[in-house]
Amino acid sequence: MVRETILLHGHIVDSLLLPKVLDVILQFGGTFELAAIQIGKTRKDLSSARITVQADSAERLAQIINEVQAHGAVVEEETDCRCASAPRDGVFPEDFYATTHLSTEVRLSGRWVPVGGIEMDLGVRVDCDGPYVYQASTVPMAEVNQGDQIVVGHEGVRVVPYERPATLDVFGFMASPVSSERPHRHTIADIARRMDALRSASGKVLFAGGPAIVHGGGRDPLAWLIESGFIRVLFSGNALAAHDMEAHLYGTSLGFGLESGRTAHHGHEHHLRTINRVRAIGSIEEAVRSGVITTGIMAACVRRGVQIVMAGTIRDDGPLPGVITDSIKAQAAMRAAVPGVGLALLVASTLHAVATGNLLPASVPTVCVDINPAVPTKLADRGSFQAVSLVMDAASFLRELAAELGWKK
Amino acid sequence: MVRETILLHGHIVDSLLLPKVLDVILQFGGTFELAAIQIGKTRKDLSSARITVQADSAERLAQIINEVQAHGAVVEEETDCRCASAPRDGVFPEDFYATTHLSTEVRLSGRWVPVGGIEMDLGVRVDCDGPYVYQASTVPMAEVNQGDQIVVGHEGVRVVPYERPATLDVFGFMASPVSSERPHRHTIADIARRMDALRSASGKVLFAGGPAIVHGGGRDPLAWLIESGFIRVLFSGNALAAHDMEAHLYGTSLGFGLESGRTAHHGHEHHLRTINRVRAIGSIEEAVRSGVITTGIMAACVRRGVQIVMAGTIRDDGPLPGVITDSIKAQAAMRAAVPGVGLALLVASTLHAVATGNLLPASVPTVCVDINPAVPTKLADRGSFQAVSLVMDAASFLRELAAELGWKK
Amino acid sequence: MVRETILLHGHIVDSLLLPKVLDVILQFGGTFELAAIQIGKTRKDLSSARITVQADSAERLAQIINEVQAHGAVVEEETDCRCASAPRDGVFPEDFYATTHLSTEVRLSGRWVPVGGIEMDLGVRVDCDGPYVYQASTVPMAEVNQGDQIVVGHEGVRVVPYERPATLDVFGFMASPVSSERPHRHTIADIARRMDALRSASGKVLFAGGPAIVHGGGRDPLAWLIESGFIRVLFSGNALAAHDMEAHLYGTSLGFGLESGRTAHHGHEHHLRTINRVRAIGSIEEAVRSGVITTGIMAACVRRGVQIVMAGTIRDDGPLPGVITDSIKAQAAMRAAVPGVGLALLVASTLHAVATGNLLPASVPTVCVDINPAVPTKLADRGSFQAVSLVMDAASFLRELAAELGWKK
Amino acid sequence: MVRETILLHGHIVDSLLLPKVLDVILQFGGTFELAAIQIGKTRKDLSSARITVQADSAERLAQIINEVQAHGAVVEEETDCRCASAPRDGVFPEDFYATTHLSTEVRLSGRWVPVGGIEMDLGVRVDCDGPYVYQASTVPMAEVNQGDQIVVGHEGVRVVPYERPATLDVFGFMASPVSSERPHRHTIADIARRMDALRSASGKVLFAGGPAIVHGGGRDPLAWLIESGFIRVLFSGNALAAHDMEAHLYGTSLGFGLESGRTAHHGHEHHLRTINRVRAIGSIEEAVRSGVITTGIMAACVRRGVQIVMAGTIRDDGPLPGVITDSIKAQAAMRAAVPGVGLALLVASTLHAVATGNLLPASVPTVCVDINPAVPTKLADRGSFQAVSLVMDAASFLRELAAELGWKK
Repeated sequence: MVRETILLHGHIVDSLLLPKVLDVILQFGGTFELAAIQIGKTRKDLSSARITVQADSAERLAQIINEVQAHGAVVEEETDCRCASAPRDGVFPEDFYATTHLSTEVRLSGRWVPVGGIEMDLGVRVDCDGPYVYQASTVPMAEVNQGDQIVVGHEGVRVVPYERPATLDVFGFMASPVSSERPHRHTIADIARRMDALRSASGKVLFAGGPAIVHGGGRDPLAWLIESGFIRVLFSGNALAAHDMEAHLYGTSLGFGLESGRTAHHGHEHHLRTINRVRAIGSIEEAVRSGVITTGIMAACVRRGVQIVMAGTIRDDGPLPGVITDSIKAQAAMRAAVPGVGLALLVASTLHAVATGNLLPASVPTVCVDINPAVPTKLADRGSFQAVSLVMDAASFLRELAAELGWKK
Repeated sequence: MVRETILLHGHIVDSLLLPKVLDVILQFGGTFELAAIQIGKTRKDLSSARITVQADSAERLAQIINEVQAHGAVVEEETDCRCASAPRDGVFPEDFYATTHLSTEVRLSGRWVPVGGIEMDLGVRVDCDGPYVYQASTVPMAEVNQGDQIVVGHEGVRVVPYERPATLDVFGFMASPVSSERPHRHTIADIARRMDALRSASGKVLFAGGPAIVHGGGRDPLAWLIESGFIRVLFSGNALAAHDMEAHLYGTSLGFGLESGRTAHHGHEHHLRTINRVRAIGSIEEAVRSGVITTGIMAACVRRGVQIVMAGTIRDDGPLPGVITDSIKAQAAMRAAVPGVGLALLVASTLHAVATGNLLPASVPTVCVDINPAVPTKLADRGSFQAVSLVMDAASFLRELAAELGWKK
Repeated sequence: MVRETILLHGHIVDSLLLPKVLDVILQFGGTFELAAIQIGKTRKDLSSARITVQADSAERLAQIINEVQAHGAVVEEETDCRCASAPRDGVFPEDFYATTHLSTEVRLSGRWVPVGGIEMDLGVRVDCDGPYVYQASTVPMAEVNQGDQIVVGHEGVRVVPYERPATLDVFGFMASPVSSERPHRHTIADIARRMDALRSASGKVLFAGGPAIVHGGGRDPLAWLIESGFIRVLFSGNALAAHDMEAHLYGTSLGFGLESGRTAHHGHEHHLRTINRVRAIGSIEEAVRSGVITTGIMAACVRRGVQIVMAGTIRDDGPLPGVITDSIKAQAAMRAAVPGVGLALLVASTLHAVATGNLLPASVPTVCVDINPAVPTKLADRGSFQAVSLVMDAASFLRELAAELGWKK
Repeated sequence: MVRETILLHGHIVDSLLLPKVLDVILQFGGTFELAAIQIGKTRKDLSSARITVQADSAERLAQIINEVQAHGAVVEEETDCRCASAPRDGVFPEDFYATTHLSTEVRLSGRWVPVGGIEMDLGVRVDCDGPYVYQASTVPMAEVNQGDQIVVGHEGVRVVPYERPATLDVFGFMASPVSSERPHRHTIADIARRMDALRSASGKVLFAGGPAIVHGGGRDPLAWLIESGFIRVLFSGNALAAHDMEAHLYGTSLGFGLESGRTAHHGHEHHLRTINRVRAIGSIEEAVRSGVITTGIMAACVRRGVQIVMAGTIRDDGPLPGVITDSIKAQAAMRAAVPGVGLALLVASTLHAVATGNLLPASVPTVCVDINPAVPTKLADRGSFQAVSLVMDAASFLRELAAELGWKK
C-alpha cells in the first residue's frame, strides 16, 4: 500500500470539485480518507480539504495523482516539475506535458512559476535567466528548438480549475446546452453590455467570422460595430473580405444581389473581379485609402485601425493581398493578437471558431454563434467548454447586437 | 402503332413546358411530331403547340398521355371523365384520380367544370344537380360516402400548370434552393409589403407556428402583428398557446426565463400550471376576457377575433380547452379556414408546415421559415414546391418582419 | 431565522449530490451547517449527510426545502403529504404536485407509499382503500375526476434520485454530449446485446419510429428485427405504416423507388392508393392475413403479434384503419403499453421521440436516433436526460443493429 | 435596332436549353425570331435551332449574347476571342474571362481551340507556339505572370453545356434535391459498381475526407478500400491523418476510445503525442515502413502508393510531416492530382468538399456525403451542381460502400 496526501483549495463546493475528486480516486481503484475538510459558509468563501489517497501500487497511485491534478488538487509533498531536452527542432520529448487552456503553474526550485501564454495543446518551455530565476511559457510543437527544456510528466504542475466568473450576466452561468429553443435576446443584451464596457475601458474585443455574415445580410451591422469602435481585432479568411468588398463594388455577395434578392448577371465572377482589382491596387488598405472601397467591413477596419488577421485555405480564389497563406504563420499571427482580448465572438465559421477556440485561455469570455448546432458542440468536444452558444443565423445576430448598441439601420 | 394529338397552350416558353412535355414523351418510349408551334414574342404572349404522340401500344400511349396531362397538356379528342361509385364509406373506388394542389377541371357532358376546394391528395366527387348541371369538388378519403360518384382514371381531367405570378417580389421567382447563405432582408420586406396590402384589402393571412417562437423570443413581435391586424388565422398546437400564456403568468417558456435568461425554480411545471389554470377557467377566450391573460399571442388573437385552430398531438400536456384532439376533425377545421387565404406563413413547426402545405392550393403564396434546412426540403419533397424558404430562427424572423411593418420593440 | 434539518442518503459522492444540495442552499439565500457526514469508502458504499439549513424567512426556507427535495433530500421532521380535491373533471387543484419521471413516494399516515405508473408531468392521486390502506398513482390532467384527492405542495413527497445503472455498457455512462463525431459501433453493439438478453428473458423492447425509416431504406432490417422477436411494441404514425405497405404494393416510398432509386410514374399517389386499399379491406391485420401485404414492418408485426399503437396527426392522408385519431386516446394507448418495457428505441421521429420520452420512467434505458442533432437535444430539454443519443440516419442505424443481431441482407 | 444570329446545337430538348435561351432573351429585354428549328426524334438525336436576336442597343445585345453563351449558344458570325496582357504578376487584366467548370473553347485565328485544365473561376492564358499554333489553358490568378496573354470579354469563347451522362446509374440523373429522406442503398451500389469498373480499368478514384471519418468509426472500411486498390488519390487535412494514427497507437480518436466507447484517460493528448512521435520519426512513410504504424488509412496509403495531399489549416496541431501548410501550394498539389480522376468522393469535410469541387471539371462524377444537408447545398451554390448528394454519416457510408465491394468487417 502506498499513500500520498493531496490538498484541495478554492470554491470546491460551488464547483463540485470535492466529490469529483473523491469519485476519481475510487474510479481508478484507490481509497481515501478525508483528513480534514473546511467548507465555506457562502459562495464566496473558500473551502479546503485534505485527503489521504491510498493505492496498491506506486503506479496506480501516480495515475490517480495525475488525474486529480487536472481538477486542481495539489500534492502536499510538493516536488519540482521535471524537464527534458527537445530532441530536435519541432519535436517535443516523448513524455511532454500538454497544456489545457486553464491557468497553469510549474514548480521550479521549490517555487510555483506561472506559465505564460497559456493556450490548449502546447508544451511548456522553461528558461533559466539566472540562478533561481526561471520563466515558463507555452511553446507550439512547430516552434520548439532542439535542446529547449520542456516540462515532462505531471509532477510539479498545477492548474487553476476554471471558476465561472461571479458576474450576473450570461457569462456567469455554466454553459447551457446548445439549443435553438432558447431566447437569445438577453444573451445578446449581455454581450452588448460587455462590449460597451470594454470599449469604455479600452479593452479588446476579438471577432472571428465567416462569409455567411455577408451573404446573409450582416455586413452593415458588423461594419457599424467596427466603425463605432466596438471591435479591435478581426480574424477571417479570404472569403469574408472578398465578399464584403464585392458588396461594395457590385452590390452582390457570391453573385447574389443583397438588395435585389436575385442572382445577378454573371454574378459568380464578381468576387473574382473584386479580388483581382484589389490585387492590382496592391492591398486592402490602399483600396480603402484610394477611395475604391469606401463602405463595409474592411473599409471600417482600415479606417479604425482594427488589427486584421486573414488566414488562407485551399478553397480560396486569389487570394486577396494580406491573406496569410501559410497556416503556421497565420496561427502565429492570430496567437500574437490574442493577449489582452476581453471578449471573443466566433460567428458563422467552423474553421475560425475551432481555431480561435484553441488559442484562447479559458478565462476569456467567448460566444459562439452558428445556425448549425453541431458547431458549438464541436467546440465543446475540443475542450472550449466555457463558450456561450447561440444557435441562430449570423445576420440576425449582428443586427440585434448592433441595434442593442445603438445602430439605426 | 397508336397515336393521339395533344395540345399545349399558355406560357409554354416562360414555363419550360414544351420541352418538358417532349422529354416526357421520349422518356416513356413514345415519339412525336410537332404538328404546329406558335411561340409568343414576349413573356406575356401566349404560345401554343400541337403535338402528335405515337407509341407502340395503347397502354404505353395511355401512360404517356396521363403523364403529359400533369404538365397541362390536353388531348385534342376530348372525352368526358369517368366516374365510379365509392364502394363503402371512407373508401374510394380503386382507380380514383388523386388531386394535385393545382387548379383542376373535369369534363362532364362535354363541358369543362372546375373542381372546387382544390387541395393535394384528395379525390374528386361529382354531383349532378339536374340535367347537365354538374358540380365537382374535392373530397378527403375519410369523408367519402358509399355511392358517391368519384372520378377515376386520368381521361377528361386537366390541370392548369402552375404559373409563377408576374409580380416583381420574391413570390414571382422560381423557388430558390434552400440555404442559410442568402440574405433574407429583401424577402422579409416583400412579405411585409404583401401583408400590408392584404390588410388594406381585407385579405387573409394565415400563420401556422410552433412553440419555438415563444421559446426563442418571438412572442412580442407575433403578438404585435396580430394586434395590428396583419394576421387573421392562426394554426398551432397546444404548446404554442400553453407557452405563450406561461410567459404571461410566469415570465418563462418551458421553464426558461424569457427576460432573466435562466432556468426558473420549478420552471418545468409552469406550463402545466398554466394549462390547469385555463382548464379551470374553461376556455382561452374566458381567460383573456376575465383578465387572467392580458398579453401575448393568444390574448391578441382573442381581442382581434383571429380564427384559431389548435390541433392536438400525442406529446401534449393537458391539453388546453379549445385544442381539437381528433386529427381528422382538426384537419377539417383547418381546411374550412383555408378559403380566402392570400398568404401563408409556416414558421418553426415541421408538423404544421407539412400539414398546412398539404391543404393549400398552389396559388397561395407560401413562406416556410425554419432553422433546420431539412424542413423546407421536406415540404418540397411532398409537392409544395412553390414555397419561399427562409433558413433562420423563428424569433429573428418575427422581429425583423414586425420591425418592417412598424413595430418598435 | 428559521431552520430545518435535512437528510441525504445514498450514493451521494458518486452522484455529486452533496455539493449540488449545498450549492442550491447557498444559491437560494440560505446557509447551512454540516451536522454530520459519513462518506462511503467505495462506489458501492452508501453515504449519508445531515445538514441544518437556515434562512431568514419561513418562505425562503420552504423554497429551499422544495428545491433540495428534487435532489432526494428529505426533511428530518417528516410530515405527511397534503391532498386537495380536484375542483372539476379534468382540472387539478391549484397547487398540485407535478411528477418527474423519477421513482417517487408520498407519505401517508406516517408511511412512505410508492407512486404507481410514474411518468413526467402528471398529478398524483391518492386513494384510500380502507383504514390506513392507501394507494398513490399518477393521473393525467385530462383524466382526473372532480373530487379526486390530489397531492399538493412538496411536503411529504420524496423522489429517488436517478442513479445511473451499474452496467458496463453505454447505458451505464452519463449521457454523453449529442454529437455526430462519435463512433456508434460499440453503442449499437451494446443495444444489440441488451435486445438479445431481453428476448431471452421475454422482456419487452419498444420501438417508436417515423417514415424516414422506410424512405431511407431501413424497412428490411426493421422487419427482420420484428420477425425475429426482438421488438414487442411499435409506436408509429399513419405514415410509417402507409409507406411500409406502399413499399410492398408498389416498391416505392413516398413515390420514390426503393430499388430503382428514381421517382416513379405517378408515384406520389402510391401511398394514397395503399391506404385506400387497406381501408377497403378493413384492417391492416386482415390485409396481412388475406395475403395482400406479405412483407415488411406491418406484416411482421401482425405475424408476430407485436402490439401496435398508431397515433394520428393533422398531416395524415386517409388514415389507415387502426390509426387512433384522437391524441388523448392515443396517449392512453401508448401509456398502457409502457409497463414492462425494458428498452426503448426512438428512431427518426421528433414527435414520437418526445411523446414517448414523456411517458417513460427514468429507469427505462432509452436510445434516441436522429440525423438531426437538435432532436436528442430537444428530448434532453424536456427532461429525458438519461437517453443515449446517436446522430445518424435511421436506415444505417437499423442495418447495423440488425447485422449485429445476425441479419444477412 | 441591332440584331445578331445565334446557333444552338445539341440535346436541346432533353436539356431544356431552347426555352431557357428564349427566356433569357426576353428577360434581358430582347426579342427573337426562330429562324429555323430542327428537333430530334429521340433523346439521342441532336437538335439545332437558329435564332435571330434583336435589341434596342448594341450594349443590351452584347449583354444578351454574353448571357446566352453561358447556355452554349454561339454567335453565327464568329469572331476570335480577344486577349490582353496581364498588368502584373498575380493580376489579370480587368475584363478577364472567368472560367466555369464546363469544357470550353476559344477561337483563335478562326479556329476553335480547347482550353486545357478546365476548372472553375480561373483565367484563360493563350500561348502562341508558332505561326497559327495556339494553346489555351487555364491559369489561377496567383500564377499569372506579367505580360501573359489572357482572354478578356465573352466573344470568341464557347462552353459545351453540361450533358448528364447517358448512363443508367445515379450519375445519369439530374441532381436530386438534397434530402436525408431518400434511400441510399442503390446510390451506394452505383458508386461501388463504378469504383469496381475504374479499378479494373486502372482508372483513378479521388477521396477527400475529414476526421469525422475516424471519429465515427469509418477508419476500417476506408483502410480496406485503399488496401484493395479502389482509391488512388487522398485529399485530407492534418486531422484525418493524425486521428487515424492515434487510433493505431492509442485505440482512440480525439481521445475517445473507438472500441471502448469511452473517453480515455488523458485522451485529449493522444493526437498530440501521435503527431510528435511521427515528427520525431520524420515522415508518415517512415512511420509505416519502420513498423510504428501498421494499420489504418495512412498505412494503407503508404503500402499501396496512394497519392496523398494533406493541406494545412489554422486549426492544426503540429502539423504532421507532409502537411502542406501553404494553401496556394496545397491547391497546386491538389490541382496536379486531378487530371485523370474518374470519380470523386467528398466525405465529411466542408472545406475539402468545396475546395475539391472547385478544382473538378463538371465531367467528373462527384459524390458529396455529409450528415449536414447544408454542405451539399453549399457545394451546389458554388456551382458544383452535378454532384450526387448523400445526407448520412461518413462511417455508415463507408461501411456500406466497403461491404458492397466485398469487405467483411
